[in-house]
Amino acid sequence: MAELSRESGVAIATIKYYQREGLLPPGERTGPNQARYDQSHVQRLKLVRALLEVGGLSVAAVRDVVDEIDERNSTHNVLGVAQYSLPLRQVEVDDEARAWAMKQLAVVAEERDWRLLPGTPPTEALVSVLCSFRELGHARLLTVLDRYADVADRIAEADLDSVAGLDSTEAIVESAVVGTVLGDVLLAALRRLAQGAASRRRFADKTATS
Amino acid sequence: MAELSRESGVAIATIKYYQREGLLPPGERTGPNQARYDQSHVQRLKLVRALLEVGGLSVAAVRDVVDEIDERNSTHNVLGVAQYSLPLRQVEVDDEARAWAMKQLAVVAEERDWRLLPGTPPTEALVSVLCSFRELGHARLLTVLDRYADVADRIAEADLDSVAGLDSTEAIVESAVVGTVLGDVLLAALRRLAQGAASRRRFADKTATS
Repeated sequence: MAELSRESGVAIATIKYYQREGLLPPGERTGPNQARYDQSHVQRLKLVRALLEVGGLSVAAVRDVVDEIDERNSTHNVLGVAQYSLPLRQVEVDDEARAWAMKQLAVVAEERDWRLLPGTPPTEALVSVLCSFRELGHARLLTVLDRYADVADRIAEADLDSVAGLDSTEAIVESAVVGTVLGDVLLAALRRLAQGAASRRRFADKTATS
Repeated sequence: MAELSRESGVAIATIKYYQREGLLPPGERTGPNQARYDQSHVQRLKLVRALLEVGGLSVAAVRDVVDEIDERNSTHNVLGVAQYSLPLRQVEVDDEARAWAMKQLAVVAEERDWRLLPGTPPTEALVSVLCSFRELGHARLLTVLDRYADVADRIAEADLDSVAGLDSTEAIVESAVVGTVLGDVLLAALRRLAQGAASRRRFADKTATS
């Protein structure tokens, strides 16, 4: 276990905790106080750490992901369970507002063969944002929805390209989670720089008016 | 002031606080305990609230934005001060890592006429993400950088389109801040749905391997 800790960079106490929680299978017993760990344990450890620390998943959600792997479900299913569990910002909305938002989202999703799953963070976050736009008096910002959705398809293709070559489901899921969570920040920051350039082209010569 | 509070939906105590902090100009005195407020105060209030509550800016940063407006700087400058102040997630990085990240970002920015401003949230967030990719052993995820940057330009065009028709700098900046902050979440959530569809196309028939 000391060697596993060294190779993965995860502390021994943390490894023991993951084992107690069922996130990491036991090593092969070789003596009363000895167990053998192999490369699959190193990979699993990296995945669990990425899900918990980078992704912000709960221990229960991480257990769902590793169970999917252990049941040898498709890489798509494993990836789905992981990605759909990543937390996103959401607010409470009432039934009327939710119905209004879901109706608009259904159109966008159906056109693109996307699956809206009520109760999961992506769908709940979308409902929250649409309702917030309306409540803050910025319903006109919803005109961007279709263009954002087109762009999201292009981003997703880039994302999948960047992990498709990896050689195990664990490596694909780990990389996808890191790429998704940090990629959100990457995209947000690049967008600010691009907005700066676009604003310069449009507004640089216009004096502020109030 | 009671009427201003009613029309803007901002509590009287909050309006007084904004005035003490220099975020909202005084009304026109009409008596010892009376002042007249007009539509420009309503607009300013909405902007200040969006910057503080949606954008998460500090009071000092909000003051910079309203000062730019009052000095009648260009809409581009006001928008730049606001957008470049929106906080983004960042981590500490050492000098070597920072130099490595800035070098890669400089290439991306120069190609697109973007301005990298060290010390501002967008640039610091980009440096953080690039360094985190490398530190977590996922430097290959950086292959997405160029494609993300292209997409960011398209998003920025959609963003500017959605606010360009508004009739005052305050309305443009307010709407841009709301659209940028909530748009980050919108984009992140749409990306998850698009990834789900892309993953289905690529991985649905592949059994998990570890």
